[in-house]
Amino acid sequence: MRDAAGLDDRLSQWRERADRALTHALPASDAPPQRLHQAMRHAVLLGGKRMRPLLVHAAGALFEVAPAVLDAPATAVELIHAYSLVHDDLPAMDDDALRRGQPTVHVAFDEATAILAGDALQSLAFAVLADTDTDDATRVALLRTLAQAAGVAGMCGGQALDIDATGTGVQLDVAALEHLHSLKTGALIRASVRMGALCGHADGAALDALDRYAQALGLAFQVRDDILDVEGDSQTLGKTAGKDAAQDKSTFPALIGLDASRARLDELARAMDAALEPFGPGAEALRALGRLAIERDR
Amino acid sequence: MRDAAGLDDRLSQWRERADRALTHALPASDAPPQRLHQAMRHAVLLGGKRMRPLLVHAAGALFEVAPAVLDAPATAVELIHAYSLVHDDLPAMDDDALRRGQPTVHVAFDEATAILAGDALQSLAFAVLADTDTDDATRVALLRTLAQAAGVAGMCGGQALDIDATGTGVQLDVAALEHLHSLKTGALIRASVRMGALCGHADGAALDALDRYAQALGLAFQVRDDILDVEGDSQTLGKTAGKDAAQDKSTFPALIGLDASRARLDELARAMDAALEPFGPGAEALRALGRLAIERDR
Repeated sequence: MRDAAGLDDRLSQWRERADRALTHALPASDAPPQRLHQAMRHAVLLGGKRMRPLLVHAAGALFEVAPAVLDAPATAVELIHAYSLVHDDLPAMDDDALRRGQPTVHVAFDEATAILAGDALQSLAFAVLADTDTDDATRVALLRTLAQAAGVAGMCGGQALDIDATGTGVQLDVAALEHLHSLKTGALIRASVRMGALCGHADGAALDALDRYAQALGLAFQVRDDILDVEGDSQTLGKTAGKDAAQDKSTFPALIGLDASRARLDELARAMDAALEPFGPGAEALRALGRLAIERDR
Repeated sequence: MRDAAGLDDRLSQWRERADRALTHALPASDAPPQRLHQAMRHAVLLGGKRMRPLLVHAAGALFEVAPAVLDAPATAVELIHAYSLVHDDLPAMDDDALRRGQPTVHVAFDEATAILAGDALQSLAFAVLADTDTDDATRVALLRTLAQAAGVAGMCGGQALDIDATGTGVQLDVAALEHLHSLKTGALIRASVRMGALCGHADGAALDALDRYAQALGLAFQVRDDILDVEGDSQTLGKTAGKDAAQDKSTFPALIGLDASRARLDELARAMDAALEPFGPGAEALRALGRLAIERDR
């Protein structure tokens, strides 16, 4: 019982730490151009689970990396995630007015500002990462990892596959859907874990094992998201529920049903445990984040 | 006469080299997601003066850097420039249908694809830069330079100032207009010159002198742009002429008149010459690019 409480404290402390680092990295809202800066802060600071920063800290902690070193990669990956949400919410994309219980950036500000704020958040991510408090070789490895995960071979590629598949009436099969999500959300989750481990100069075997964990977690996160879209209500979710079905999106519940989707989550939980087994009790925070991805209700 | 011809050949060779490197860096148009990849290639490969890659090569040549080392920064800065044009042309921004004599990306494809292609081009720029054929310390310096130039303290910040000032009926004064352009176009031009010099391990004094050159060139480029928007025709420009006045944008001709704008160009030409003076004949390519910025008709 004490261990579980200690673990919760640790996650809370990392979450607060991530929020502080993000607040510090973002441009001041009273410095010109104010509207751009305010939109960037709106996009990043009004909520968010901080799953990706937590993964950076949990993976880094496995190699006893000082949290101060992990601030930059934790901030950078959350900035990339935040920018992608701003652009995904745009009228030309998912056209969503609500995110984390708040008006989306183009609603609170305007479309031009939302496009630009997203662009500037992406640049800021790489600027922050270039100043990570570590050696140059590790900095380059971090920058390469995040840039590749954000681009065509990662998040943007997955988003493009999603656009191609949405509203066309074509249902993807499960393999295609898993591939889409391995890029769209999986790439950034894997990059989070990898960046934490890179700061600890993890060896190839450790990086591989952690990548298996992160792959399972990324997919679990999305399966849970799809289940929540069916079962959840907009108020708890902080975003519009039932949106996937309305947009005729391929989802795990639509393709294989709710029961099989829940069974897939159990499978992925076991895959995470197996990947983390070699790390022993030191991986407790990563295990907790895995459970969080699977059990969350928003 | 032979020198001038030699110089022209050199610039042509660098331009072809930049096109080859860009073609090589972009994802294949027949690999999925094809539509995204095709939009990215459309944005980058259909024309463009390649001014920024040429500046990288010309600045690097001053320090006898091998052109192969300069391919990555030359590619990266042009990818950032290209993504910014894709997003600037969007309906929510400048709403332009024509660019370099071709339909803009959101016209040739669609808005969602244009937003995403711009995003992916930005990620690709940093991924390419992380693999520059140099030492890790220089790679980090290149990445930091480009990320800062692309973000709120550079291009995105300038674009935000431009949006704030457009269509509001408020005329900027000359100092505010120069500040806007020093961010919007100047930051990336300065980064181009700096990245070439960083690859040559230039010392602080050389970096400072080159930065004075680049600042003058960036401003000259914009003054010339404003003059062309008044004097040019859409066919030669490859984009819509008279657009600035129609959008009630602050421009140098509108603020100080055409004659004073031309006089300002002469002043900037002298500032470039003064900044390059210490480098002697080795800076001939940079001088030629300065003249090109001032004398171009598109």
